[in-house]
Amino acid sequence: MKRPVVVATLCTGLVTALWPIPSSYESGNEVLWIDGHVQVDYKLNSQADNSFSNSASEQIINSAVERTFLTIFDQNFVPWKFNPRNSNYEPDESNRQYVKSITLQQNTPEPTNGTRPASTIDESYTLSMPASGEVVITANSSIGLSYGLTTFSQLFFQHSDGGAYTKLAPVTIKDAPKFTHRGLNMDTSRNFFSVMDILRTLDAMAFTKMNRFHWHITDAQSWPLEVPALPELSTAGAYAPGLTYTPDEVAAIMQYGNSLGIETAIEIDMPGHTSSIWFSHPELITSFNTQPYDTNCAEPPCGSLKLNSSAVYSFLDKMFDDLFPRISKYSSYFHSGGDEVNVNAYLLDDTVKSNDTAILQPLMQTFIDHVHGKIRNNGLTPIVWEEMLLEWNLTMGNDVLVNCWLSDESVAQTVAKGHRAIVGNYNNWYLDCGQGQWLDFSPNVSASFYPYADYCSPRKNWRLVYALDPLTGIPENSTHLVAGGEVHLWAEQIDPVNFDKQAWPRAAAAAEVLWSGAKDASGQNRSQIEASPRLSEFRERLVARGVGAEPIQMPFCTQNGTQCYV
Amino acid sequence: MKRPVVVATLCTGLVTALWPIPSSYESGNEVLWIDGHVQVDYKLNSQADNSFSNSASEQIINSAVERTFLTIFDQNFVPWKFNPRNSNYEPDESNRQYVKSITLQQNTPEPTNGTRPASTIDESYTLSMPASGEVVITANSSIGLSYGLTTFSQLFFQHSDGGAYTKLAPVTIKDAPKFTHRGLNMDTSRNFFSVMDILRTLDAMAFTKMNRFHWHITDAQSWPLEVPALPELSTAGAYAPGLTYTPDEVAAIMQYGNSLGIETAIEIDMPGHTSSIWFSHPELITSFNTQPYDTNCAEPPCGSLKLNSSAVYSFLDKMFDDLFPRISKYSSYFHSGGDEVNVNAYLLDDTVKSNDTAILQPLMQTFIDHVHGKIRNNGLTPIVWEEMLLEWNLTMGNDVLVNCWLSDESVAQTVAKGHRAIVGNYNNWYLDCGQGQWLDFSPNVSASFYPYADYCSPRKNWRLVYALDPLTGIPENSTHLVAGGEVHLWAEQIDPVNFDKQAWPRAAAAAEVLWSGAKDASGQNRSQIEASPRLSEFRERLVARGVGAEPIQMPFCTQNGTQCYV
Repeated sequence: MKRPVVVATLCTGLVTALWPIPSSYESGNEVLWIDGHVQVDYKLNSQADNSFSNSASEQIINSAVERTFLTIFDQNFVPWKFNPRNSNYEPDESNRQYVKSITLQQNTPEPTNGTRPASTIDESYTLSMPASGEVVITANSSIGLSYGLTTFSQLFFQHSDGGAYTKLAPVTIKDAPKFTHRGLNMDTSRNFFSVMDILRTLDAMAFTKMNRFHWHITDAQSWPLEVPALPELSTAGAYAPGLTYTPDEVAAIMQYGNSLGIETAIEIDMPGHTSSIWFSHPELITSFNTQPYDTNCAEPPCGSLKLNSSAVYSFLDKMFDDLFPRISKYSSYFHSGGDEVNVNAYLLDDTVKSNDTAILQPLMQTFIDHVHGKIRNNGLTPIVWEEMLLEWNLTMGNDVLVNCWLSDESVAQTVAKGHRAIVGNYNNWYLDCGQGQWLDFSPNVSASFYPYADYCSPRKNWRLVYALDPLTGIPENSTHLVAGGEVHLWAEQIDPVNFDKQAWPRAAAAAEVLWSGAKDASGQNRSQIEASPRLSEFRERLVARGVGAEPIQMPFCTQNGTQCYV
Repeated sequence: MKRPVVVATLCTGLVTALWPIPSSYESGNEVLWIDGHVQVDYKLNSQADNSFSNSASEQIINSAVERTFLTIFDQNFVPWKFNPRNSNYEPDESNRQYVKSITLQQNTPEPTNGTRPASTIDESYTLSMPASGEVVITANSSIGLSYGLTTFSQLFFQHSDGGAYTKLAPVTIKDAPKFTHRGLNMDTSRNFFSVMDILRTLDAMAFTKMNRFHWHITDAQSWPLEVPALPELSTAGAYAPGLTYTPDEVAAIMQYGNSLGIETAIEIDMPGHTSSIWFSHPELITSFNTQPYDTNCAEPPCGSLKLNSSAVYSFLDKMFDDLFPRISKYSSYFHSGGDEVNVNAYLLDDTVKSNDTAILQPLMQTFIDHVHGKIRNNGLTPIVWEEMLLEWNLTMGNDVLVNCWLSDESVAQTVAKGHRAIVGNYNNWYLDCGQGQWLDFSPNVSASFYPYADYCSPRKNWRLVYALDPLTGIPENSTHLVAGGEVHLWAEQIDPVNFDKQAWPRAAAAAEVLWSGAKDASGQNRSQIEASPRLSEFRERLVARGVGAEPIQMPFCTQNGTQCYV
């Protein structure tokens, strides 16, 4: 990777505005302004295609251009935090040179399954912005062009007198992702999030070039998913009336994601983490809310689908037959869960009455074979949590993606078994950690323990998030099996009020690792000192777009370059 | 303390809505509705005083009534999170019984210095709400009545069909604070906060009966305080033009606080933490921004007022002569700081050229004598950080309040020297902790260290905040010297976007300790299991009022009573 050309402008503030950092990025120090009348042309295979005959491309390009203009003109910011105090860092307003045109050049036709864009698509792009102002973005897909526009929008700042400018022309960028799976996992069971909360999150993900929305839609605590074939699931299992996702809302969320290049992998975690089914179907659930909880599950309320029950299979078939045809329009994936299954739950299961893994393991194999069969029959690819592979030793098709969360080592074990792995262990990428315990402690629990402890403390500072290399410990000949990774936001202590602050900008630190790679050109972990002001700047862009991202440093640090370090 | 009478209603949800918990609190299970036409009467010494002849009382009572109605009718919430899923917890809407009248009975006249209300005032109150609906609140001050109204407002929920009701009538409350000093420290130097951010914080403080706003207005990083006699201070030292507090804004903030029963203690931290003066007066500052910073100060940028400089004294006199007459209208306090003075800074001080404490200590004594003399001459009481007393062993008048932050032990040492102490050590009450380091680390710093470490990790979970007893280790005959305590929110990683989440509801956990005491009637630390759902409910009230407080538990826990515990 070439280093940014920043010599001439270092003395007047930061100039490397881009997050994630492109594969190749050169910039100068000429000023260009932009106004809303700039001509945008979309060309497919060198032919001007203003008719947007491909509806998926049309949606993607239109929304990308609209978003780009909104970002540059309405949701931008004056960068006083990134320039020396009391300096005249803004460009002269006289004799303005403007961006003259933006040409979006798509070199190959859109694939026919354009509504499921990301899994098979070439996401690379190039961006050229000469000082003369004729911008050209090229890509092999509409999503690639969309990414190019996202990068383009991050070159501009708001002027305090109005208008938007860049001081970086000429710019030449060639960019492509390191990993294909760049995800964020949102838990809408432990707390409910509105459609708007989710759309705002998808916007922020796209702004940092993430492309997988792992929607952990149900869990033990509530069942917000409306399933028309089984309406009682959400009627009884949602936290309250109205705190549900209708089929139309699910479709709208998935479709909106697609327009941003994001595929949604809906997860219905099973056979554990299913207690919320008990509210409508107690006959399907074993060990519901047993106390003390820790004998039978990882957190209250306990409960697991019975493991040898024809009623459970009938129920699942009915649910899948309703759900899968709807979601397969927009996604290639369905996540069947499989984490933290506690064998003791099956002692109370009248179809099993055992916690002997020799008895349980074959039943679990039958269970996963049945579930994955249904998934594949609907043209979807299964995703599972790592325990299904590494703890239960189930035999699964090599198409199955494995969500690793326990360690770096489990990624290595997963790829050694020939499966593609999604990285994101709790020591680095669990963004909910570090709030301290949400469980209440009895007075007889030592005060030296309870206030501090939770299994995934401490909070994962962005530097820790940034330090995870998904390829750690992976043999050279298996790196292709590391699909990418995900950050996770379990919602025991996160709801719409604090979601943004928990997610951002730390999720963006992971996004850069996944897009740009964890190592720099010299093979070292990327420098915090280089990344820190750039992430601070990206954070301001998120805030300007209505995402309540946290600050990572105070303005003193970012105004004065690299002075806050050890 | 009597326990709340909750037997009859436990099965249909939570009923103890009050935070902080009153000294004595009895309630029933009758329903009362309230509407905006309810008659409110204010009586002073048994005489109806609708003329509000005392202007301070008038302001306090008017704003309290207005705030109470706003809270009950417009900023309330439907408590689905605190009642069993799918239960009919809302009262029958037919045959509504209403609150008929609210009588505010002030038993003693307002003190003449009503604009500085809290330090000398009796904050106690009683509240009676019979099932027949004639509410009577009594107190010896308008602030006491205001607190009674605050408590009253917390008895009501919003009905999903509109309107507001309580299910707790009859209610009898007798309440008074355990500690007189119940504060929150906000740092407006490391990040700037708008006047609205501060007013919102004062509102939230008053809602939890806090009464001291410790305004850490300046520090090394920026000088946002406009001082008309020295305009260059903020012109050069503010982060950016406009990020300043005008004299009118300072007055408005202090006056608004007073109307809520809150006194503002402005702190200008000195002689350390003054580097932002360097931007306008480099001649007054030693060791500005020396690198590596940790030789000369606690965090970048280093810098300290010179210690033996007549120019410094002239500068301070000019500043104090401008500032003190303005703030003494609204407050009894001025905080002169004094934490983290690093002796090495004076090696570079041309008026000292030494880091020998034998030389420095007498100079520091002269410095503090001078500063405190000016403070007292303006009718103000000095506050200092504990190092001035315990590390520098300065001799100070016993009027000086000492801000302890290093340990419980320092509180005991402070009162042993006859000073009043403000509790709030960093292991419990530093609410900014646990975000991880804000300093950038060089690549050669071990990854096993840097991402985790900051001196005050981990985050102070509310249980830990709640577990601090200000009287820990204090001899019985000295407890009167423990004035109370403060939570602290240093702003290296806090700005307006995430302030509310960092402050609330954890500051409220400290507020209950300070108002109600840390121990229950049996002398044990108060139960988390009792407090947790009540604090969750209080958090919803904060959110309804526009304060972005975090959740502490998921709705599953609060809907189902005590099931999330170990």
